[in-house]
Amino acid sequence: MKISMPILGPRALWEKTARWESMGSELLKVRDRHETEMCLQPTAEEMCTHVVAQLPPLKKRMFPLLLYQTTEKFRDEMNPRFGLLRSRQFLMKDLYSFDLTKEDAAKTYSKVCRVYDRILRDRLGLEVYKVVAQSGVYGGSVSHEYHLPNPLEEDGIHFCSKCGTGITKEGGSHKCECGDSAEVKTFSTVEVAHTFQLGTKYSKAFDALTRDKQPLEMCCFGIGVSRLLPAIVSLMSSEKAIRLPPLIAPFSAAVVVTKNLMDNVITELTLSSLDRRLSGGILLDDRVEENVGKRIKHLREIGIPRIVVLGKTTEGTINKVPMVEYFPPQQHCDEDESKEWTLSQVMQSIG
Amino acid sequence: MKISMPILGPRALWEKTARWESMGSELLKVRDRHETEMCLQPTAEEMCTHVVAQLPPLKKRMFPLLLYQTTEKFRDEMNPRFGLLRSRQFLMKDLYSFDLTKEDAAKTYSKVCRVYDRILRDRLGLEVYKVVAQSGVYGGSVSHEYHLPNPLEEDGIHFCSKCGTGITKEGGSHKCECGDSAEVKTFSTVEVAHTFQLGTKYSKAFDALTRDKQPLEMCCFGIGVSRLLPAIVSLMSSEKAIRLPPLIAPFSAAVVVTKNLMDNVITELTLSSLDRRLSGGILLDDRVEENVGKRIKHLREIGIPRIVVLGKTTEGTINKVPMVEYFPPQQHCDEDESKEWTLSQVMQSIG
Repeated sequence: MKISMPILGPRALWEKTARWESMGSELLKVRDRHETEMCLQPTAEEMCTHVVAQLPPLKKRMFPLLLYQTTEKFRDEMNPRFGLLRSRQFLMKDLYSFDLTKEDAAKTYSKVCRVYDRILRDRLGLEVYKVVAQSGVYGGSVSHEYHLPNPLEEDGIHFCSKCGTGITKEGGSHKCECGDSAEVKTFSTVEVAHTFQLGTKYSKAFDALTRDKQPLEMCCFGIGVSRLLPAIVSLMSSEKAIRLPPLIAPFSAAVVVTKNLMDNVITELTLSSLDRRLSGGILLDDRVEENVGKRIKHLREIGIPRIVVLGKTTEGTINKVPMVEYFPPQQHCDEDESKEWTLSQVMQSIG
Repeated sequence: MKISMPILGPRALWEKTARWESMGSELLKVRDRHETEMCLQPTAEEMCTHVVAQLPPLKKRMFPLLLYQTTEKFRDEMNPRFGLLRSRQFLMKDLYSFDLTKEDAAKTYSKVCRVYDRILRDRLGLEVYKVVAQSGVYGGSVSHEYHLPNPLEEDGIHFCSKCGTGITKEGGSHKCECGDSAEVKTFSTVEVAHTFQLGTKYSKAFDALTRDKQPLEMCCFGIGVSRLLPAIVSLMSSEKAIRLPPLIAPFSAAVVVTKNLMDNVITELTLSSLDRRLSGGILLDDRVEENVGKRIKHLREIGIPRIVVLGKTTEGTINKVPMVEYFPPQQHCDEDESKEWTLSQVMQSIG
């Protein structure tokens, strides 16, 4: 169930779990006009568990209870840097699960981890490294982090390419399951998601109980939404072009039109044909005073994967079989192919 | 253009316009680990003007430049109360306009005010009172507030029902344009939107200039999104039922089904017929263990405008002409009509 919790968390809530102290200097603190202390919440276990504890006793069939939000979170970073990669304000999707038993909680944990795999690997197409992590101030025993390679970060992982298991650098050295330590590589990465089996730390503190007065078993799960963007850009892009998974590209395609063709039916036709095949929106680049080369360069820089140019080539062929210039999605090179295509060839290549 | 500005505003920005002091105790202040002071921004004139001042010189055709966001804002209320009506964290839509001349700015101001009228009067169907307001710490000369009657608030307006003009209570007494002061009523209200012609207060402070180095002419506009909901509820609802403009009702209709009919084709038919006619989503109430009366009461309480019941009546007529119970949108009474309708009569009444 989607919810939205306040940004400000009262000190009293955070003291119930001793995290007002243990989160230390990462908590950004505020004092209101009545001298009441609050923090800008970096995460919401306390508030969420407090809310669940206030509910009337829940029936068995309501479990697992899953509550999630995508809201602004805060962390008082020592050195905010690299734009959105390490900033004090960031967008995070956080999900809190409540179960009746430890076994149910473990099942819920596996289930949500599979969803995270699907989001990161299948939908976004990322080669993400899932490694064993420390639970730290969150509490609980089992925890995993999802990492993307990133040269900027001092974070990192040890990962065995043979058995596909790993551990965060702060977790120490990695004894991998296959015993073949020769395959263990260490590289610098950035964490983009984190999952925890929390146990009963929060449910005990806030009296979030089953009908039999047992503390509920909790897990929590987070995806660093605003960090994902720079992490992906740094992973996939070159100096000349941003490359993004189609799902998060600002537009699926751009149509660059010269002044002469702005009102021509070929423009309308191209836009509507693309729109029928692609679901992420089509950008009409009508900056007709700028030269076409500059416009293409700019569109590549902001991450538009496909570019159709209606320019000189089209003007010269408009009365026969109209040809366009087409720049398909780039994979691992910056060489833009600018050969001439018919519109139907472009549409066929898109599928 | 939609933008999103940070929640934390550095003290340095707010000192440039002297609002760090003049906003006084309403500003919630934060100090980070380096002792840098910031505030939780209640509005974003400073930050927005600062951003515009950093842009490369803008061409004439880019004006009016309109930048808006719908984000969480903060105000250190002396007494947060009435739930979302007066809370320290609230959702506000804020729009900032930049023009080359005073005249252009006045035109932009009228234009956006007309859009506000359309949102509040036409789309939401509210009888809103637009009155002359004080610019206060915002600066500028012309300002208007949009008010809804509300018994809870100590805010209020003087309004002449004859000429349709008014002023906020804090603005003093109202000399209305028609001279007929007998028609001036004073009543308690809540402000739901505010518009300002700001002039050059912010553009001068941040050097947001035209290509000829003149300060840009600004206006700003805000709608209290999270306050609108309780204001509307208090205005339209009764003890028994929340009534909301269709545009913001949680669902357009609910279908209450008994256990026997859950898998019957009549349920599928009702849902799909409603869905074709209504755009706000249809809720299937499948709480089959609860009694129907309780379920209807609950749906009214959360603001569902139309309720179709597939229950005893439908079960008894299912093999002839199936009848349903239909509760149409309530206007000004709580007497639910529960007469029997055919499905096609229901659909006709929806249109």
